[in-house]
Amino acid sequence: MRITALAGGVGGARFLRGLIGHIGTRDDDAAQATITVIGNTADDITLFGLRVCPDLDTLMYTLGGGIHEEQGWGRADETFTVGDELRAYDVPPDWFTLGDRDFATHIVRTQLLRTGWPLSDITAALCERWQPGVHLLPMSDDPIETHVVIDDADGRRAVHFQEWWVRLHAEPEAKEFVFLGAAESTPAPGVLAAIESADLVLLPPSNPVVSIGAILSVPGVAAALQATSAPVVGVSPIVGGAAVRGMADACLRAVDVDTSAAAVAAHYGARRTGGLIDGWLVAEGDADLPAPAGVVQRARPLLMSDVESTRRLAGAALDLALELRAWTAATTA
Amino acid sequence: MRITALAGGVGGARFLRGLIGHIGTRDDDAAQATITVIGNTADDITLFGLRVCPDLDTLMYTLGGGIHEEQGWGRADETFTVGDELRAYDVPPDWFTLGDRDFATHIVRTQLLRTGWPLSDITAALCERWQPGVHLLPMSDDPIETHVVIDDADGRRAVHFQEWWVRLHAEPEAKEFVFLGAAESTPAPGVLAAIESADLVLLPPSNPVVSIGAILSVPGVAAALQATSAPVVGVSPIVGGAAVRGMADACLRAVDVDTSAAAVAAHYGARRTGGLIDGWLVAEGDADLPAPAGVVQRARPLLMSDVESTRRLAGAALDLALELRAWTAATTA
Repeated sequence: MRITALAGGVGGARFLRGLIGHIGTRDDDAAQATITVIGNTADDITLFGLRVCPDLDTLMYTLGGGIHEEQGWGRADETFTVGDELRAYDVPPDWFTLGDRDFATHIVRTQLLRTGWPLSDITAALCERWQPGVHLLPMSDDPIETHVVIDDADGRRAVHFQEWWVRLHAEPEAKEFVFLGAAESTPAPGVLAAIESADLVLLPPSNPVVSIGAILSVPGVAAALQATSAPVVGVSPIVGGAAVRGMADACLRAVDVDTSAAAVAAHYGARRTGGLIDGWLVAEGDADLPAPAGVVQRARPLLMSDVESTRRLAGAALDLALELRAWTAATTA
Repeated sequence: MRITALAGGVGGARFLRGLIGHIGTRDDDAAQATITVIGNTADDITLFGLRVCPDLDTLMYTLGGGIHEEQGWGRADETFTVGDELRAYDVPPDWFTLGDRDFATHIVRTQLLRTGWPLSDITAALCERWQPGVHLLPMSDDPIETHVVIDDADGRRAVHFQEWWVRLHAEPEAKEFVFLGAAESTPAPGVLAAIESADLVLLPPSNPVVSIGAILSVPGVAAALQATSAPVVGVSPIVGGAAVRGMADACLRAVDVDTSAAAVAAHYGARRTGGLIDGWLVAEGDADLPAPAGVVQRARPLLMSDVESTRRLAGAALDLALELRAWTAATTA
């Protein structure tokens, strides 16, 4: 059984760790599932001349056992000597913290990029160390960067997503998100095939705009999600009108979507009517929210507060996808 | 008064620190001397995609108060997290150790090189932090690398100087040193002027072949040393038939020069007869060795075992140069 997931950073990584853990407890076909993860690379940024891929690294470190658990990103047991030295040299920016262990990843990646390796091959090489238990693919080998149009005291201008998110704490209203480079990009090798040939497709509770939305901005990805015979099941990143993590509300406002599980489901839309999802998991308190016609909605505990609850959530998403798949098989038989 | 010195790494850096210290104790014209240092860049190597300039950094860290004193190179209070991580990624080479603090220097340098800055401007920018008390110039802004022709179990081949020196401990006999890129290089801005307009030129006890020799391989440098009106005084890196530091003997053998103060002086040659030096400091035990005709030789304690002895040695070199300058002034008056 082939499971394919689209994922951003922290939320996606924790969900996927839960999925791997859950699969290990099953005794049906799903126990043997292979998982392909299509990671968002539009958060990527070049800092100090080094290419940093926050979401790919969060996925790799989380699934490979190197993550800083409390923080959700970056390495455990991290030190900050290189960054302190860069500050002593007065090298900007001073608002993005990279640890020493993390620096090594960016040094290796940049060295290989400079010698012509595509990001997908580099990611595979890095994963030889981390053994994340999934096949991790960047959404594209082409550089794509999310920039945010803001209008603050410095005037109307576009800043890199990381500057808006990390330095400006998503406080200046985002007028628009632009996925620079996306229109001319192509999906990384294996991305479209992973969607088209999947038995199940999952959308973890990642940011619908700057994570899942960025992946969908790569030409061909949305069409592949439309075309695949696999059911597509999403998990709401919104619980009771608030983002489970991060500042998704500030992103949703920019695309005129309310901060509610129902509004995000409507934003994704039902596959049957040209949208992206067949199934949708919402929190138990959101059970009465309307789902788009053609989307099967189920209410389950969505918090990923510990290993067990995260496994149960992933199991619920998997169960819904398996049910939808069985129904489709019965319908077309 | 303008003093210009050519310098390699550890020996040159310690000598220059002694020179700065000594100058501070004088009450003649030399007390106000400005010092320009032309550093060897042929030891430079690209590791992990980062440009490493060992001699420039040793000069900068030593004169700027950041050096690892016992070791003579690298940073004090150094840690090795990034290097450990690179090994965990199995990224070669594993025979060159870079510390975390040191990595920051290479990251800044490489970032600026990639944006088109010449190495001389980058060195000046790094020195804004280190305030070395000298004007530090790379010998050239062009990449030059010393490679060593060896003939060992793996056959006859050329390896980077650092591979021969650090990994192979200078054990395979060096058949030849090749300064790759030197023939097509030009001196960095200010290098020729610093020699031509100097009042005194000093050659610290750096390696005559791979440090001073590499600087001399840059077209125009040797001619500037010939042409300058300043006296040129060298300090022997050989005491009693052995190198004071490092493996200079292995380098001298490759150019058919004995490991003796007299042989190195003859190798440099008297300026009067087309060579490079006017004055030559040897150890007291080497006082009876012959000097080339036209070279004034003086015997002084050459060991740089502590701050005081190093200052005295630098003072002796300065005194000899000042005497030679006074004689020249008297002769041409």
